[in-house]
Amino acid sequence: MKESVEEKKYAPVGVFDSGVGGLTVAREIMRQLPEESIIYFGDTARVPYGSKSKETIIRYSKQIIHFLESMGVKAIVVACNTASAFALEELRPEMKMPIIGVVKPGAKAAAKTTQNGRIGVIGTEGTVGSQIYTEMIHRHNPKAQILGKACPLFVPLVEEGWLKDPVTIEVAKRYLASFQESGIDTLILGCTHYPLLRSAIQDIMGSSVNLVNPAYETAQGLRRLLEGHQIANDGKAGPAKYQFYVSDAAEKFKNFANSILPCEIKEAQLIHIEE
Amino acid sequence: MKESVEEKKYAPVGVFDSGVGGLTVAREIMRQLPEESIIYFGDTARVPYGSKSKETIIRYSKQIIHFLESMGVKAIVVACNTASAFALEELRPEMKMPIIGVVKPGAKAAAKTTQNGRIGVIGTEGTVGSQIYTEMIHRHNPKAQILGKACPLFVPLVEEGWLKDPVTIEVAKRYLASFQESGIDTLILGCTHYPLLRSAIQDIMGSSVNLVNPAYETAQGLRRLLEGHQIANDGKAGPAKYQFYVSDAAEKFKNFANSILPCEIKEAQLIHIEE
Repeated sequence: MKESVEEKKYAPVGVFDSGVGGLTVAREIMRQLPEESIIYFGDTARVPYGSKSKETIIRYSKQIIHFLESMGVKAIVVACNTASAFALEELRPEMKMPIIGVVKPGAKAAAKTTQNGRIGVIGTEGTVGSQIYTEMIHRHNPKAQILGKACPLFVPLVEEGWLKDPVTIEVAKRYLASFQESGIDTLILGCTHYPLLRSAIQDIMGSSVNLVNPAYETAQGLRRLLEGHQIANDGKAGPAKYQFYVSDAAEKFKNFANSILPCEIKEAQLIHIEE
Repeated sequence: MKESVEEKKYAPVGVFDSGVGGLTVAREIMRQLPEESIIYFGDTARVPYGSKSKETIIRYSKQIIHFLESMGVKAIVVACNTASAFALEELRPEMKMPIIGVVKPGAKAAAKTTQNGRIGVIGTEGTVGSQIYTEMIHRHNPKAQILGKACPLFVPLVEEGWLKDPVTIEVAKRYLASFQESGIDTLILGCTHYPLLRSAIQDIMGSSVNLVNPAYETAQGLRRLLEGHQIANDGKAGPAKYQFYVSDAAEKFKNFANSILPCEIKEAQLIHIEE
């Protein structure tokens, strides 16, 4: 038993997303937990998840978790808000290993951050429609008022690379207008692509509104989870390794990853996830 | 043999796309070939196709064609430029029935329309990157000069419903700027979503540029194909029936379809296409 825990310690953490967005979470894990190896999966053949149904997202998430299990990961991070919102609670009973999503940590961080109890949430149609952030925030602060807004064009704008473009700012102004006069003091970036639009969003919301990026709290939550299960990597077996798998367009993924990650990735491997 | 041809006459035509875009082609078939029944499939669980690889699009297209065959269609229309560009020639040898895409008819129409031999093509990354329009136009006019431009934000803007929005016009201006001073007199709307942005695109390009919507020529091509195989529906077995299948989010699809089709559709049925 002791040996198996020792071995597990050095196993990688599995991180998955619909595509490249979850790299903002992987980046935060690399920064906060530099001893941990990561196997990242991006479902680029079926991206985006945000406009698809709960049933479909659960099916896709199960396939990915089976793949990550087969690769010997010790824990799984669902680095996608839509998959966290739709699939996490459905998946947990079947899981043999610890699993953590981005919604719960993000909700907790927002509940801690707000002073006036008014919190905005932006995300995909799926995430916002699920009302999951409202439910999770209310566990910490039952009186909090939560205002959600789906921003379906943000993901394609990020993927087009128009991060600080006037068009992106105009789209953001349109979406964020619903928060005007709402008096929110905290805004959750409830989609893992959105931290890449952070500066545009902050400019529009003004400096009095705190932006919450769930990636930061997710990495903290992962640390506690690994320590709780006594499977945190102590770094004694050598430096962390990062591996990347995708279901399509590996070269394009690699280029995007290299533009946002602190390390250079040499390869993203293609697999057929539905098989 | 004669009986089987008689029966086949009354079978539906299969039409497929990655999602709702192909409805602009279905709409044209309904208008020009009102006797023909249609079975439409929209791959809404894996939309969009435009940013995905050739191998993935071929795999998805094969699955869909097997489904349409199992539904007893007599011919297939690939109502998606990306699938037409990547998969049509790969699929043809395996096909037991006539199949037609949107690229060849669109290329032929553009070659007929242009006066000065300078043609623009807008479409997804996949379609434009494949250079298929260039290849097909050169069969009709080897000296034509073709200028392509991928417009990845057009599909999400259409799906957001921002058809005549200032943001859409700004994005269109940006993408279409590459055609300024190119002297094109013809522009192919090389993605089945784009006819829904026709008026914004025409305003920017000016009235001297002819917009070619391949849907029109595709319906004409389908008519010739059915007549050539002696399987055109003569209408004697009753009025045309239209059936719709999707791989996800049936209700949303139905609402979109009802906003652009001339008839009301009562139901879109959900199927698991990868099985």
